[in-house]
Amino acid sequence: MKTTRIFIRLLGASALCIGFAANALAADTANDAALRKAANDYFEVIPSAVPAVKGNPVTHEKVELGKMLFFEPRLSSSALISCNTCHNLGMGGDDNLETSIGHGWQKGPRNAPTVFNAVFNIAQFWDGRAADLKAQAKGPVQAGVEMASTPERVVTTLKSMPEYVEHFTRAFPGEKDPVTFDNMAKAIEAFEATLITPASRFDQFLEGNDAILTKQEKEGLALFMDSGCASCHNGVNIGGNGYYPFGVVEKPGADILPANDKGRFAVTHTADDDYVFRAGPLRNIELTAPYFHTGKVWDLEQAVGIMATSQLGTELDDKSIAAIAAFLRTLTGQEPQIVYPILPVSTHATPRPKEMIAK
Amino acid sequence: MKTTRIFIRLLGASALCIGFAANALAADTANDAALRKAANDYFEVIPSAVPAVKGNPVTHEKVELGKMLFFEPRLSSSALISCNTCHNLGMGGDDNLETSIGHGWQKGPRNAPTVFNAVFNIAQFWDGRAADLKAQAKGPVQAGVEMASTPERVVTTLKSMPEYVEHFTRAFPGEKDPVTFDNMAKAIEAFEATLITPASRFDQFLEGNDAILTKQEKEGLALFMDSGCASCHNGVNIGGNGYYPFGVVEKPGADILPANDKGRFAVTHTADDDYVFRAGPLRNIELTAPYFHTGKVWDLEQAVGIMATSQLGTELDDKSIAAIAAFLRTLTGQEPQIVYPILPVSTHATPRPKEMIAK
Repeated sequence: MKTTRIFIRLLGASALCIGFAANALAADTANDAALRKAANDYFEVIPSAVPAVKGNPVTHEKVELGKMLFFEPRLSSSALISCNTCHNLGMGGDDNLETSIGHGWQKGPRNAPTVFNAVFNIAQFWDGRAADLKAQAKGPVQAGVEMASTPERVVTTLKSMPEYVEHFTRAFPGEKDPVTFDNMAKAIEAFEATLITPASRFDQFLEGNDAILTKQEKEGLALFMDSGCASCHNGVNIGGNGYYPFGVVEKPGADILPANDKGRFAVTHTADDDYVFRAGPLRNIELTAPYFHTGKVWDLEQAVGIMATSQLGTELDDKSIAAIAAFLRTLTGQEPQIVYPILPVSTHATPRPKEMIAK
Repeated sequence: MKTTRIFIRLLGASALCIGFAANALAADTANDAALRKAANDYFEVIPSAVPAVKGNPVTHEKVELGKMLFFEPRLSSSALISCNTCHNLGMGGDDNLETSIGHGWQKGPRNAPTVFNAVFNIAQFWDGRAADLKAQAKGPVQAGVEMASTPERVVTTLKSMPEYVEHFTRAFPGEKDPVTFDNMAKAIEAFEATLITPASRFDQFLEGNDAILTKQEKEGLALFMDSGCASCHNGVNIGGNGYYPFGVVEKPGADILPANDKGRFAVTHTADDDYVFRAGPLRNIELTAPYFHTGKVWDLEQAVGIMATSQLGTELDDKSIAAIAAFLRTLTGQEPQIVYPILPVSTHATPRPKEMIAK
């Protein structure tokens, strides 16, 4: 934090240098180096290669199968909703709705988080109730308001199509009964591990490219660290790696933080976790409005202002908010290119779609 | 038709040749040639290149834009439903539901036809009420039970995103105001013209490959022509090119042909068009169950039996039905490989999703 405070002072100093171009350039270079040093203490460059997944080697066969399953609407009982419905890979990895629409047009309770870079999060869901993407993948498939299916129905569906059986056999070699709900989740996890967005402008700055960020974006980065945002939003995903109370200084309005959703309390059942949520991972944040677990805030600048007030007890001025938002928009990385999978055709043994609302 | 009847007799004759391998081979070759000649009178090989579209040159820029729009959920007022929701390019170009599910989980009135090879149909929809794919594309966007949007909302949505404005400007060069509802439809039509499935085994047979079809499939093809199926199901799409009464000899049950859907009558308002529908295009038919405009029949063999009874007044035996179904399964072509488009991010000016059911 110290380095950053120095940097802020340097920024002020460099403003005095107008007219002394050579000096200003030298000062800018020094500032950039100090800023980078501070930033590298807080953040990590996103890798450009697929990360390893604990207990689930990411093989080509698993990724290919996982991609099919990610786009497979027959994992839902209506045969209409796939993972990609709410985690749309063409829309920043989420649905850009306040909260998702699921089976029977029911509204989900919380905003769908992006699947991009989710592999780097400490745990999954806003309350971290799934330890990893494998555990996460099993949730929406079974949730009545989402895909409204069951493990049995999923396995029957997948086993009914010989092409899926072949894919599972190749993806899980040596297993006697490879088509299982667990293996479905493992394959989806392996595919999702490939959904990373490297080479954002911010990463390029971290790696030494001074010119890739504007002055305003650098000011925003400095402010992000200096104001305390980076205390929770840090690491490779600039968040997603720890749990914090929402409204630590001042609770935001009930539309943004409704009393009936106590966040992580429902997972740990300890009073300390009242209204505690996983810090939002901020990569590609400009693609994933609306914001917060309620999805009630559509404007990035407004979201920054709310965070400053509620988490830091700071009223940021418009210029500072604009700078932080400009910095946050440098976190947009290169989205993965996905060839849309051609799915196996249903057979007589494939369960028919249930189009009614689940009771 | 004459050639086919001869062929059927030849098939009988060739059965006598068992044990005389050389003679049998010569007879088979002659039979294949006769069968191909008859088939080429009824059917056309699907082209492997994108066909021209009347009044709408299929440019690369238009296709790229059309692909984005095809996958664009913000064309619906909920921001959840895209063309691909019901015409899923990974599922044979349709949704494999009896009738589609749209805005507010409403059920549509008829089974979603496949978008694959739709460019070759005489007109679009089961009743042919849209002259072409451009006209078709405007329907579901506005239908209350489908995407529930309006031309104004669509144009406001598209104009709100600079990246879309750029794409339209490139796709419709020289136009003063390129972002229009009409141009949206033209771009979608251009993309859909690329969604053709060449090189089915049947096409390869038409082009001279005797060995590509099995004996049963050839028998099925001969029966398809000889029984009269090909009177309505012919041309490049093996259907889709003419209008015929459903139940011309005997009306099927009310579940399959309900009294309240009079088909093309609603378009032409002439009594002659009571229960008249466009003959179903049969390419990729094995991928597009359930069948008929009501989607009430899931089994291809059953559908063949119903057609024989209701349209031809013929009770086909199981062996004949199996042969025709086997032939129909040779109509599955090579599905297009689609790179999933990355869509522009919404701006402050983009209309927010309407998640309620349209009044």
